[in-house]
Order: sequence, then structure tokens, then C-alpha cells
Amino acid sequence: MVLMLNEINEQPEVLKRCMEKNKDSVKKLAEEIRKRNIEWIYIAARGTSDHAGIYGKYIIESELGIPVALAAPSVFTLYQKSVNFKNGMVIGISQSGKAADVLEVIKSAKSQGALTVSITNFPDSPMAQEANFHLDLSAGLEKSVAATKTFTSQMLVLALLVAELSGNDELKKELSLVPENISHILSTADTIKNKVERYRFISECFVLSRGMNYAIALESALKIQETTYTRAKAFATSDFQHGPIAMVDKNIPVIVYAPDGPSLKDTEAMIDKLAELGIELIVVSNKRSVLDKGTCSLSIPHTANDIISPFYNAVVAQLFACNLSLAKGLNPDSPRMLSKVTITK
Amino acid sequence: MVLMLNEINEQPEVLKRCMEKNKDSVKKLAEEIRKRNIEWIYIAARGTSDHAGIYGKYIIESELGIPVALAAPSVFTLYQKSVNFKNGMVIGISQSGKAADVLEVIKSAKSQGALTVSITNFPDSPMAQEANFHLDLSAGLEKSVAATKTFTSQMLVLALLVAELSGNDELKKELSLVPENISHILSTADTIKNKVERYRFISECFVLSRGMNYAIALESALKIQETTYTRAKAFATSDFQHGPIAMVDKNIPVIVYAPDGPSLKDTEAMIDKLAELGIELIVVSNKRSVLDKGTCSLSIPHTANDIISPFYNAVVAQLFACNLSLAKGLNPDSPRMLSKVTITK
Repeated sequence: MVLMLNEINEQPEVLKRCMEKNKDSVKKLAEEIRKRNIEWIYIAARGTSDHAGIYGKYIIESELGIPVALAAPSVFTLYQKSVNFKNGMVIGISQSGKAADVLEVIKSAKSQGALTVSITNFPDSPMAQEANFHLDLSAGLEKSVAATKTFTSQMLVLALLVAELSGNDELKKELSLVPENISHILSTADTIKNKVERYRFISECFVLSRGMNYAIALESALKIQETTYTRAKAFATSDFQHGPIAMVDKNIPVIVYAPDGPSLKDTEAMIDKLAELGIELIVVSNKRSVLDKGTCSLSIPHTANDIISPFYNAVVAQLFACNLSLAKGLNPDSPRMLSKVTITK
Repeated sequence: MVLMLNEINEQPEVLKRCMEKNKDSVKKLAEEIRKRNIEWIYIAARGTSDHAGIYGKYIIESELGIPVALAAPSVFTLYQKSVNFKNGMVIGISQSGKAADVLEVIKSAKSQGALTVSITNFPDSPMAQEANFHLDLSAGLEKSVAATKTFTSQMLVLALLVAELSGNDELKKELSLVPENISHILSTADTIKNKVERYRFISECFVLSRGMNYAIALESALKIQETTYTRAKAFATSDFQHGPIAMVDKNIPVIVYAPDGPSLKDTEAMIDKLAELGIELIVVSNKRSVLDKGTCSLSIPHTANDIISPFYNAVVAQLFACNLSLAKGLNPDSPRMLSKVTITK
């Protein structure tokens, strides 16, 4: 079995372990955040980790009302300027814990006395060692170049922190059900594999979503890009209307993540608009009436919570990309020109 | 003449007027920012205005050290949650001043007593009326759906504000030369038009840059998308290495904005890497040795300041998109499925 598929399948177990392992550290960090009365948060990350950061921004702002800035790491490395982090908290996210530019942001913040947090898969990595707090993904070694289990673990620790700070018991309960529900998606992997066949010869696609699932549209596109070389382009449906929609074409399928919840009205309106234009739609949803609108429909477990559905959509996105790569006769584990650790200076 | 080209050509005059008109308002706003001791800034915008916001983030953080968050407007509209804006400043950017979600962010911030600023082309628009301060683009009516002169004016007022706050006289001087240097680019419009011929039949391209010019890569891709329906995809060169580079193909040209300055080392390394792979490169630069590496090279005026080169690159990007649209027999003024004012709720 290819490594990527192997690691996709590990996720229920990985997320359970991650939840267990971070119980105390999340509580301690939440206490410190309350004590310091943190007024704003700065998240630094690259690639897939940056997509977890975008998810983090949405859930922190929506649930906690704390404004979140996503770092432009080049400010620190290219222009070597220092940002004033006083009264802020800085979170660095990196699978390896070695991303040089993210480490730079953490160092700068720490030297100013700001609260610093690292989220990595290696407790002994430079980032984990440098930051005041470390949330350990505990995902086990990730061998595939395309990150899967570390991405959902990154989202999970962020969601656990938000649930702890907001004291939202409903959210905590829904989070505890995520591993089991992912197992359910994995049990339908063969259906997804069969449905992907139809897309064997695509060279382009669009990927749309909205709100908290925008991060998943980005991650879905990146997974497709790096494992299949298909030019996948992600947009928030709200941005897609500001110009990019002019590019739609009957020969380019559009993947839409349209889970039940606050964002469904908008994503469904986009689905209707594209369907009317005769565009081929791959719809990922947990609502029958919405799934029925797709040429291809991929079902996810029930939830109407936009903090939860990204986990399910992420797993479908991974299975889609991995199976498309295999259908195209490629090896998802060794994309051309890529290596696992990217150290942008 | 098409409206878009007309409005591209107006830019030297528009920017001169914008500079003159905002002298006092920028000074007053800078005084207020100092008085309130603003610790962080939140920018809300969509589409092209969002790209001006990204430019704003980079220059504010690099020159002033004030952290900047770019809004996820759906937090306010979709999830109807309120972010704590106390001690912050919120800037809303919208050509029309009517973007409903951006207006929502301004209203929420104002009700919390935060400093609010609008940047629009209409002093009587809802956003201009709502915010504490208004910076008036004074660009004259923009009739083309594809924004051009309002984009460079948006960047200009942000750069003027940064120059005023930093007291950087060198920057002020360089900014005052921008209109004249843009006139120079416009005088070479025929050369650009001729060079664009070669790309008549492309259906895809990549657009790369780094640092402060990342905003221009995004805007360049958007202009190409909306006026030519070519699937243009922008990346920061630093992100391109994290997966997307696997997609490169000999039949897909790559546009690289590689001006002299702190980001050149990285963009030039990317140019060398792509050239070695035999990828067709459209290089925009002001350095002869770098221009020589492109299959097609487009020259911009001299500067080694990454706050200044985005203006020149933006005009080249506009001319490239507009001429490509015309070469393809399309009308850049009326892209299919788009209207000038987009009100995302």
C-alpha cells in the first residue's frame, strides 16, 4: 500500500492519541492565555501547515473574538524587520518544526516577551524547543511527502484549544466523535476510489468552499497539485464571484465542499449557478438534496458545525487526491521536485 | 479605445491627483494613529481591493512594525460573530465603498470605539460615511469592470500613510516619482502589445513573485483571469516550492515579477530553476541580467525598493492582461458573468 493511503488510514487512531496527549498542555496553555489577557494572535506557517493556520484564524475569531493575523514570513526573513508582538501571542505551525522562517517569527516574538506556541510533530525540533509552549501532534512519523495525518492533527489541537477557551461543551463533544466518524469515511474509501475513475484524464479543476471550510478548499487543491500535477485552483465562493468565475469551462470540473451549516446557503447558491451553466460538479456534502446536484457526489458524516465538517472534508480531499494520483498511474508518495522538509529562509 | 486601456493610461494623472488630494487626510490620520498608540491593524477587503490590502500588510509590518491581520469577512457575516477590536485600527478598502461584508467589519469596529478608516473612490458611499477617517482615491469614475487605476491609487494611499508614519523621506521622494515613471512604462505599451502576441493561444499560466510583490502576482493573475478567462494561478515563490512546483509544464508559461531589491535573490533562484527545466518564462524586471533569462522580457523603471516596484509591476500586469484579452479577440471591458459592484453579504 502506498504510504499516503496508509497515513490517511491512520487518522482515527492518530487523532485519538493526539487528543489524549494534548489534554493537559491545552489546558495549561488556555490558562496562560487567560492570565495574560491575550488581545490578538499571530500565526506563522507555510504550505499545508498554513492551511491549518487559516482554519485556526477562522475558528479563533468566530468562537473567541480574538483577532488573528496570518504571518507574511518574508517580513522577517527578506526584509529583516521586526514586528511589535507585545501583548500578543504567536503560534508557529510546522510538521517538522524546522521551517526556518517560522522559527524566525517565534524567536522574534519570544525576545519581545510575547507568548509563543509551537505546533509540530517533533518535541525535540528547533521550534518546539524555542517556544514557551509546545502542542505535540503525536502523529507518528509521516513518511509521505503529501502531509495528511499531521494536517488533521494540526486542526485538532487548534480546535481543542478553542473549545477549552470558549468552554463550548457541545464543540468538545463533537470533537470527541471526529475519530469515529473519520473511520466511517474510511470504510467508504472504495466508493470514492471508483468515483474518482471518471477524472483520470483531467488536467485542471477548481475547488470551492466558504467560511471555515475555505482552508479545506486550499488544502484539497494543494493535495491534488502535488500528487497528480493537475492544476487545481481553490477559491472561497465569495471571492470566486469577484472575477475568477469568468474562467469556468464545461471541460473543467469544479469540486465544491458544501457541508450543512451556516455556509451552506452560499455554497448551494454557487452550485445552482454552476449547474445552470452545465459545469461538471463534484459535490462533497452531508445533505442529500445538495449531493443530488452533483455529477459526482461524495458523502460525509452528519454535522451542522463548520468547526467540525473541515475534518471530514479533509479526509475526503485526501482520498480523492491519492486515488486520482493512482488512477493516473503516478506515485503519490514521491511527487516530482518535492522533498518532505522545506526550509524557506 | 477600450475603457480598460483608457483607465490604465490615466494612472499618472490619477496618482498625482490622489497624492495631492490626500496630503492633509493622511497627515491627520497619522496623527490620530500616533495619539491612539495603535498596536495592531485589521484590513478588510475583497478581490482587487484585497490585493491592495495584502500590499498594505507587507509595507505596514515591514516599515512600521505594526502587525496586520487581513479580515476573513465571513466571520462577521456568515457566523455573525464579533471580533474584539479594542486598541486596534480597522481599514476597509472598496472601490465602490459598498461592499456589504467590509462595511459590516467597519460598523462592528466603530461600535467598539476602534479607529476606523475607509479607502474608497466615493466620499458619499456607505463605507466612507461610516468610518472615522476616509482616504479618497479621487481616481475619477472607473467604468471598466477590471479595476486598474483604483488599485494603484489604493496602494498609493497606503504607501503615503506608511511614509508619513515612518518619516521615511527617501520613500516619500520615490513615491513622488511614481507617476512619471508610470508614464514611461505607458510609452512602451506598444512593445508590450507586440510581445503579448506570442501568448494568444495560452489557456493557462502561473504567476510568481515574492515579498511585497506577492500582492502583484495575485492581482496580475486576477486581471488575466477576468479579462482573458485564462486559468492564471499566482504563488509566492516561497510557497511554490511547497508542492505547486510539481505542476510545471513546458506548455504553460510562467510570469515572474523579479524586480531588483531584497526579494531578487529568491525570485532569480526560482527563474534559474525553471529555466533549467525548460519552462517558458515571462520575466518582468529592471535588471538586465535577469531580463535576459526570459523567453519574453518586460522592463520596468529602476528602483531597488520593494515598496515602489509593485506600482510598476502592476501597470505592466494590467497592460499584459488587457492586450492578451484583445489579442484573443475578447472585450476586456465586459467579462462574462461579472458586474462592477460585487456586494457579498
